[in-house]
Amino acid sequence: MAPLKLGMVGGGQGAFIGGVHRIAARLDGCFELVAGAFSSDPARAHASASDLGIAASRSYADYREMAKAEAARPDGIDAVAIVTPNHLHGPIAEAFLAQDIHVICDKPMTATLAQANDLMEAAANSRASFFLTHNYTGYPMIRQARQMVADGDLGDIRIVQAEYLQDWLSETPADDNKQAAWRTDPAQSGGGAIGDIGTHAYNLVSFVTGLRTQSLSATLQSHVAGRAVDDDARVTLQLSGGGRCHIWASQVAVGNENNLTLAIYGSKASLRWAQEEPNVLWVTRLGEAPRKITRGSASAHPAAGAVTRIPAGHPEGYLEAFATLYREAAEAIMTPDQVTSNNALIGISQGMDGVRFVDACQRSSSEGGAWITLE
Amino acid sequence: MAPLKLGMVGGGQGAFIGGVHRIAARLDGCFELVAGAFSSDPARAHASASDLGIAASRSYADYREMAKAEAARPDGIDAVAIVTPNHLHGPIAEAFLAQDIHVICDKPMTATLAQANDLMEAAANSRASFFLTHNYTGYPMIRQARQMVADGDLGDIRIVQAEYLQDWLSETPADDNKQAAWRTDPAQSGGGAIGDIGTHAYNLVSFVTGLRTQSLSATLQSHVAGRAVDDDARVTLQLSGGGRCHIWASQVAVGNENNLTLAIYGSKASLRWAQEEPNVLWVTRLGEAPRKITRGSASAHPAAGAVTRIPAGHPEGYLEAFATLYREAAEAIMTPDQVTSNNALIGISQGMDGVRFVDACQRSSSEGGAWITLE
Amino acid sequence: MAPLKLGMVGGGQGAFIGGVHRIAARLDGCFELVAGAFSSDPARAHASASDLGIAASRSYADYREMAKAEAARPDGIDAVAIVTPNHLHGPIAEAFLAQDIHVICDKPMTATLAQANDLMEAAANSRASFFLTHNYTGYPMIRQARQMVADGDLGDIRIVQAEYLQDWLSETPADDNKQAAWRTDPAQSGGGAIGDIGTHAYNLVSFVTGLRTQSLSATLQSHVAGRAVDDDARVTLQLSGGGRCHIWASQVAVGNENNLTLAIYGSKASLRWAQEEPNVLWVTRLGEAPRKITRGSASAHPAAGAVTRIPAGHPEGYLEAFATLYREAAEAIMTPDQVTSNNALIGISQGMDGVRFVDACQRSSSEGGAWITLE
Amino acid sequence: MAPLKLGMVGGGQGAFIGGVHRIAARLDGCFELVAGAFSSDPARAHASASDLGIAASRSYADYREMAKAEAARPDGIDAVAIVTPNHLHGPIAEAFLAQDIHVICDKPMTATLAQANDLMEAAANSRASFFLTHNYTGYPMIRQARQMVADGDLGDIRIVQAEYLQDWLSETPADDNKQAAWRTDPAQSGGGAIGDIGTHAYNLVSFVTGLRTQSLSATLQSHVAGRAVDDDARVTLQLSGGGRCHIWASQVAVGNENNLTLAIYGSKASLRWAQEEPNVLWVTRLGEAPRKITRGSASAHPAAGAVTRIPAGHPEGYLEAFATLYREAAEAIMTPDQVTSNNALIGISQGMDGVRFVDACQRSSSEGGAWITLE
Repeated sequence: MAPLKLGMVGGGQGAFIGGVHRIAARLDGCFELVAGAFSSDPARAHASASDLGIAASRSYADYREMAKAEAARPDGIDAVAIVTPNHLHGPIAEAFLAQDIHVICDKPMTATLAQANDLMEAAANSRASFFLTHNYTGYPMIRQARQMVADGDLGDIRIVQAEYLQDWLSETPADDNKQAAWRTDPAQSGGGAIGDIGTHAYNLVSFVTGLRTQSLSATLQSHVAGRAVDDDARVTLQLSGGGRCHIWASQVAVGNENNLTLAIYGSKASLRWAQEEPNVLWVTRLGEAPRKITRGSASAHPAAGAVTRIPAGHPEGYLEAFATLYREAAEAIMTPDQVTSNNALIGISQGMDGVRFVDACQRSSSEGGAWITLE
Repeated sequence: MAPLKLGMVGGGQGAFIGGVHRIAARLDGCFELVAGAFSSDPARAHASASDLGIAASRSYADYREMAKAEAARPDGIDAVAIVTPNHLHGPIAEAFLAQDIHVICDKPMTATLAQANDLMEAAANSRASFFLTHNYTGYPMIRQARQMVADGDLGDIRIVQAEYLQDWLSETPADDNKQAAWRTDPAQSGGGAIGDIGTHAYNLVSFVTGLRTQSLSATLQSHVAGRAVDDDARVTLQLSGGGRCHIWASQVAVGNENNLTLAIYGSKASLRWAQEEPNVLWVTRLGEAPRKITRGSASAHPAAGAVTRIPAGHPEGYLEAFATLYREAAEAIMTPDQVTSNNALIGISQGMDGVRFVDACQRSSSEGGAWITLE
Repeated sequence: MAPLKLGMVGGGQGAFIGGVHRIAARLDGCFELVAGAFSSDPARAHASASDLGIAASRSYADYREMAKAEAARPDGIDAVAIVTPNHLHGPIAEAFLAQDIHVICDKPMTATLAQANDLMEAAANSRASFFLTHNYTGYPMIRQARQMVADGDLGDIRIVQAEYLQDWLSETPADDNKQAAWRTDPAQSGGGAIGDIGTHAYNLVSFVTGLRTQSLSATLQSHVAGRAVDDDARVTLQLSGGGRCHIWASQVAVGNENNLTLAIYGSKASLRWAQEEPNVLWVTRLGEAPRKITRGSASAHPAAGAVTRIPAGHPEGYLEAFATLYREAAEAIMTPDQVTSNNALIGISQGMDGVRFVDACQRSSSEGGAWITLE
Repeated sequence: MAPLKLGMVGGGQGAFIGGVHRIAARLDGCFELVAGAFSSDPARAHASASDLGIAASRSYADYREMAKAEAARPDGIDAVAIVTPNHLHGPIAEAFLAQDIHVICDKPMTATLAQANDLMEAAANSRASFFLTHNYTGYPMIRQARQMVADGDLGDIRIVQAEYLQDWLSETPADDNKQAAWRTDPAQSGGGAIGDIGTHAYNLVSFVTGLRTQSLSATLQSHVAGRAVDDDARVTLQLSGGGRCHIWASQVAVGNENNLTLAIYGSKASLRWAQEEPNVLWVTRLGEAPRKITRGSASAHPAAGAVTRIPAGHPEGYLEAFATLYREAAEAIMTPDQVTSNNALIGISQGMDGVRFVDACQRSSSEGGAWITLE
């Protein structure tokens, strides 16, 4: 099966997530990068394209031009990866969807609710699909966790605790830190920790539990002088079914690198998982000893096995989980009739949920933690 | 130095914490148990006394009688340990304080705020001292944590996260489970998880950070049908100095035994400690590698060393920490002029704080999480 | 039940293990310390006695005098704890056994094989018992491990790996380090790491597996210039039943405090235990997920429960395990007809094994690792 | 930079390591797979080629034919990956080296010493390079460990402990387990655990410490009835400089998946690393607290940073480490004058060391653990 042809918008020299998407796209051989608008600065765009071995004829400085030109080529791209700051996700995605080019977009879907609504409409009018890279859903043990909840192994879900702790914004970042610059500018990010990492935690909770959020109460705080966005967020979700979820997202928790953890307590059993030790899922049935279930082992569920590449004890990491989303997007594009429920595609619907979540958190927090009804 | 003579009220056959107090009192040789009212049931009281090698003449069925009789003896007890259900702490303590017998009382201090006020008055009128066994303050690495905060090693305290998770009340307990029976009866306990373990977490935060709670917002929930008290509590504290503390106490978190953890995030460094691995304190300075500081090692602070019995790598546990409180009480009784700030006595004042904390949490929760001002 | 009356030889000011024995003797209320020859220096002996609240009339500077005097008193000691350097264990034990006073002796039993033979004969001629404090056998999860092996849960024992790693002798110790001084003097210790900690590992393997050592090959090395004893030892044991055990004892393994670990690999399952996390036993059945069995939990075996004081999640440590040996010695003294197999008394026989082990290791090492037949 | 053209021998349907090589080759975009002899069975070879998107014209059933045909094509392969059972490595590598096609070969280099000598001669006569995939050297924290040893951070190296524990051969494998079949056939593997995983441990020790092995003593055992190769190996190495290394490789250690660990104890500090938690290096300086150094963090050494793709806390795993070897091979092929010492290429010389190691272990073991001089 020949790889799909991929373009990219954003991700030029000095960026972080663009490189991740490129490796993820390539890792399973499903995509070949052939075009890009890697920067809005033409010189930088072309230098980046050259670094990446992209033909000059397919290096663009303007994503609108790229969308049209690629759509017009007989060998034009099948899909585009969007890896820009958040406020550009919506307009760029719309431009490619308008050309029926599939979109693989970094999270959060958009910086504002208005952008999200526009994008949803654009997606409805396109023959192409929209994929959102909430990459933590690609980890095998997260797939197992989801399956165990769905199978009723935990009984009634009582309490969910999701934490996403970092410390890289514990101080005012250096001026030349591009990653920090746009993330702490509300006009570009749409929010601070709540948008950058809180949405990952929220998506993961929804993905694993399958529960809907009926209402939420949030407190967003900022601990660094002069910061215009939140750097520490606490959210309580009232879940369908009666359970509650507590999300804590922080970028000032000294000593934490990318410490995303999920714990689910049911009436019969609990699950615990940590992104920094992703090959392990801790399962404890009430009254029994905790069991350490590992990816690739005899104890791992087929739902985990379906996205496992190598044997137990050979750690898979972040890039492999990310690559699984690309592989599943490729499968959905190439053989849409064969997509099964195990293929856990994240799309417009989950993207809307994430943007609504950020919006509700911001409203709740500005009203002193008032409960906001979501549905 | 001859050991002090100790009496005990409660802690008869089938009890849990009474045995802990007896070992703690004996471990450093500071106390000798010589009298007791181990049960309000006379037969059981005397059987327990006999088991414990207490002379029949000093076995009582009524604590009031015991207080008077012991006060009248030339060889009467110096101190009494109170290890009954919570609602009896206050009246019993008052009876012994009235006889100028020192009191070492299990937590929480009382079941109600009214009782606490009465006890405070009784203590003010007694020549004897009142000690409250918030035993987790006895761990060496907790002493080190307190000292590091006091020394400014963490910078400004931004976020404190204290969790106390258990699972032993995940279901309706068996009828013959005495420990569960009184703890889930609000008349005897004064509260559920919030009183039983939430007060420990609250005390530990106060002890280590030295910060006061200005106001709090709490949500108390019960996850087991028919339960009359909370079994899961979430509290947010607004601390003096501007930081916030989040307390989570649960007795339905499947897979947790006695999982009390404390994390303190400052502007310059963080600390992490877990009761189930008590000989370790994790310290991370911003931008540096996490360091694993161990009790008894060259890296341990003198404040830890002062309550350390054996060398690094030889684990001390729960009973040793508890015994430290007994030893420090003995020192305060025998040589009150030599008590230093390192001797971290918990008394009436901290006991009042704990009862006010429970009361404020219950009021806040009944008002939908409203903020309650504490001072 | 009134406590037994205990004397002590050694353990004066500045000693380490004497204090441990005193706490262990007292912790469960089975022994009361009433006499001692805490030092061979009279002034120091009496100062130590005074510190410990021992009547001057029962403070001795000579252990021979103490044995006779105590035997002659109507309220004389029931047992004596020997906590001197190794080369004195034998003569002191003989003096008390000759008076039919029970002996509780620190390990190794003696410094030489000749002493061990003398002591065995003395014990055979005494009405008193000899107990050796291989204290790591007192840990509840070690009792569980022993029971699981005995029950056949592991299948055939193939490989045993026992490591005892420390780093406190990584350099030449300071002159005033008494602990280091006698341990690195072969005349006082009888050996270095092999005797001080290797014997613990060897005893633990024998205790848990119940297997005999048929032959062994050892290499003893010394890594610090000028050191007269080994500080790093490697021993391979050929076990009865066909399995092999590898022991590694080191006092120069930087970063290790008192890191004694035991792993047993059978044809059906494995066990792993670490002294610095003593409340946990890892059990993995072939093809299943590892299970974390904790002391006090529903998954713990009754053999562990029999020596457990407090509930799961409330860590017990080194002193509690040590106290269990004292409690079991007290039970054996007071109610010898009720001693069951669960009461894991370590006596002359195991002491002889340990001394033979050290002797064989030294011979093997001096012959380039030659295999030495033990039985 | 256009990717290099890669061929593959072995790695057809049902194989394990072939898929790993393909992902590793692709991950950084340095290689494009264009040809292969995926099986010696023509039908299976072509089915595999078709699965992998290889043109039928470049699918071969015979590696000799492939070497010649590819060498003759103007667009022929630049390099070939050899992923067959061990006994075929040598002949296949020679066939491609004879055509001046670069070889990237799985370990161990050959099954016998005779094959290794032949291959060394073939390499000497070729203009192409030979690369051996001891993939664990690709982990960033291993690079840091090597640099720290080289910088003298550990002082004199006293003790090295390298363990590689698995349990997948704890029983006689099922008949259809291809991986197990050839590995337990001495004619195909040249050895059991010692060759399959012992060589990895040996290579890792050499790589990180930079020390040579002067002599060794080995015991190879087999614990499963009817097995013709060793499944548990113990080797002691006398290192240049005076230190000793102990290697334990086992495939019957129940509860271990791919548990390769390395600990290095020097006179000044120690290092510990575990392959199943590869992003962490534990560093302890004598007398200081252990530090947890993480890949990508401010504490990581530039030598680690040079082979790091993504930030701290985003775990990299086995495939990334493997890909680093492919990337460094590509760099060595494309820009041989720019290869620096950081580029840790493993070639013929290290391959010879590994084969000599296996041979010496087998000889030593057959002589009862006799010491064999290596150089």
